[in-house]
Amino acid sequence: MSDRSAEGQVPFDHRLADELMESHQLDLLIVNSKHNVRYLLGGYEFFFFFQSMEALGHSRYLPLVIYVKGRPQDATYVASVMEAWDHALRPFWTPHVDLVSWGTMDAAGAAVKRAKACGLSKGRIGIEPAFLPADAMDLLSDGLPDASFGDATPVLERLRAVKRPDELSLLKRASEDIVGAMVATVEWAGPGTTKNEIVNRVRLEETRRGLGFDYCLVTMGSDRNRAPSDQAWQLSESMSIDSGGNLDGYIGDLCRMAVLGEPDGELRDLLAEVDATQQSVFSHIRAGAIGRDLLEYGNKVRSDGPNREYTDLVIHGMGLVSHEVPFIMSNRIYDGIDCDLALEAGMVLSVETTMAHPARGLVKLEDTVAVTADGGEVFGDAVRGWISR
Amino acid sequence: MSDRSAEGQVPFDHRLADELMESHQLDLLIVNSKHNVRYLLGGYEFFFFFQSMEALGHSRYLPLVIYVKGRPQDATYVASVMEAWDHALRPFWTPHVDLVSWGTMDAAGAAVKRAKACGLSKGRIGIEPAFLPADAMDLLSDGLPDASFGDATPVLERLRAVKRPDELSLLKRASEDIVGAMVATVEWAGPGTTKNEIVNRVRLEETRRGLGFDYCLVTMGSDRNRAPSDQAWQLSESMSIDSGGNLDGYIGDLCRMAVLGEPDGELRDLLAEVDATQQSVFSHIRAGAIGRDLLEYGNKVRSDGPNREYTDLVIHGMGLVSHEVPFIMSNRIYDGIDCDLALEAGMVLSVETTMAHPARGLVKLEDTVAVTADGGEVFGDAVRGWISR
Repeated sequence: MSDRSAEGQVPFDHRLADELMESHQLDLLIVNSKHNVRYLLGGYEFFFFFQSMEALGHSRYLPLVIYVKGRPQDATYVASVMEAWDHALRPFWTPHVDLVSWGTMDAAGAAVKRAKACGLSKGRIGIEPAFLPADAMDLLSDGLPDASFGDATPVLERLRAVKRPDELSLLKRASEDIVGAMVATVEWAGPGTTKNEIVNRVRLEETRRGLGFDYCLVTMGSDRNRAPSDQAWQLSESMSIDSGGNLDGYIGDLCRMAVLGEPDGELRDLLAEVDATQQSVFSHIRAGAIGRDLLEYGNKVRSDGPNREYTDLVIHGMGLVSHEVPFIMSNRIYDGIDCDLALEAGMVLSVETTMAHPARGLVKLEDTVAVTADGGEVFGDAVRGWISR
Repeated sequence: MSDRSAEGQVPFDHRLADELMESHQLDLLIVNSKHNVRYLLGGYEFFFFFQSMEALGHSRYLPLVIYVKGRPQDATYVASVMEAWDHALRPFWTPHVDLVSWGTMDAAGAAVKRAKACGLSKGRIGIEPAFLPADAMDLLSDGLPDASFGDATPVLERLRAVKRPDELSLLKRASEDIVGAMVATVEWAGPGTTKNEIVNRVRLEETRRGLGFDYCLVTMGSDRNRAPSDQAWQLSESMSIDSGGNLDGYIGDLCRMAVLGEPDGELRDLLAEVDATQQSVFSHIRAGAIGRDLLEYGNKVRSDGPNREYTDLVIHGMGLVSHEVPFIMSNRIYDGIDCDLALEAGMVLSVETTMAHPARGLVKLEDTVAVTADGGEVFGDAVRGWISR
């Protein structure tokens, strides 16, 4: 345990965190998901050794950020033994740093001690139930038998919703670099290039640009299966490329359309139809706009299109997670819970119009839009028409 | 739920799985860690969309492989809705596939149903406590109140310990490509190249070779801090490069030494001293050898070296996890639990000798050795001396 006397700069809006904790009746946060650890540590790249690996022998890497309501001076980072290297080079902002963990149990044990030291052994503790391992949860409840536990997820989601300028800048660069990687991939490809080869090339082009590659969904021609395969690109066929990659965790996630040769009239019309829906949404984005209204404006244009039956529009926030606040779209996890929320400047939306055309395949545009006081800034939109090869 | 009548080929040694489950008193396995899902699905690359991302909105991606002791015909894969694409292209071997999950709760709910359908609502269920999210664990115990739960980790670790030829081949290729990426990186580097640049170049060179980059630890000169930084390579300085990267999850993890210019006599001696320990261990590796004895043989040579005080030797298994069975080394998680185990042909060892020289910095070799009936095959050993630039 190293205790630094300098309190350091809190890298997130801790007053907002305190308010949210108050309204959710939480005294203490114990946070372990990759995205929230990264956020609460502030500008610190998630420990490089476990960017892609999760396991460590029998157990897993479990970083824990501990934050006490109203007391940033008591914030603690429980980290792996190896993070001493990072701490020596770029000290963590948290006044307390506990470099003790080999696995889940060491980390949870350190959290129990810390909660007690902060006088919160009877407190209400917010954890991330979908991310905290079961054995760590057991050790927390055994070690703190008088505490109660609640779900910190809504607090953390809301805390991250409005992005700072440095976060917006990463999202913008990531979006532009994703599109750059796609254009370079299409230029490199040709007749017979397979979906597997496209995915590998997008990975390489994103890596070259300094992005962490996350995934690439591809379709060619009429086949709407988006998984990598040996399917080969044929003359005049369209190709949808939907890829995610991140800069320091901030995700660029866009979809663009390519064609081998020149797009025929029908393909031009289909993409124009998709883009009309996108543009309708863009034109209504601004601080104060309501998510439900954005969906309605977009769906009005969509339902005027000849291919409305198999065209969908979804809108959701994005940032450190590819779906985050505001949750405007519906699915079994979040069911449009932020539909009636007024947008704020600094929120970031992903807008996706997907046409699953029975004969011409998937025609899709996915864009990232930062909400501003009087409109929206669309990231990575230098290229949004057909990319011809 | 799609039920296939063809039972398909079980891609792991299910008789061994049954024996291990019997001896650990488990009727059913519910498995969710990345490495074990991959292993039990057999040759299937972990769902590409979540290779690097874990979160999905509020929740996380939770694949579950369910295996009933002695009944491979009842095996089930609970997957994300999007894995329908993969299933269509390369059907999962499990006779039951449940493509229903948006997050942890959907997946756990499907597992409860499946356990009941298999008549195991009073069974003893093995889970992975360090990997299963707390909310999924709660739903399993609430949904199966008459079941009891145990730790499946030792069963799964032991099941993966002896590698098949296809697994050995991936580990060999990964090891060779890691070394190739290191050599290419050193050739590309020069005076003033920073540790950050080295890490980024290793990432690019591994990606070019089709590896999934995991991490890269670097030191230069006398500084033994292994995290990336702006430290620049100086003439005559040594550099240690320790990197992990994987092919379909199978990890190559080696450390090699480079020098800017020609190595001086002292550097030559130090690396020779490290290599002597490595070679001593290699020469004793064979089926039937005991881990504790390997450590003793290596440590005998190590303790003859002039720099023994700050030189360490560790030996551990590796494969889909960078530390796995046999756990010969000690730390707070596994404390040398396989020290007295006789090695079997097909086990794979990582052998690491690390000299933390106070003046010349980190001098380290890490090698991967596959155990054979009468010896060991050292992967990626074409280059193991000083790589001069």
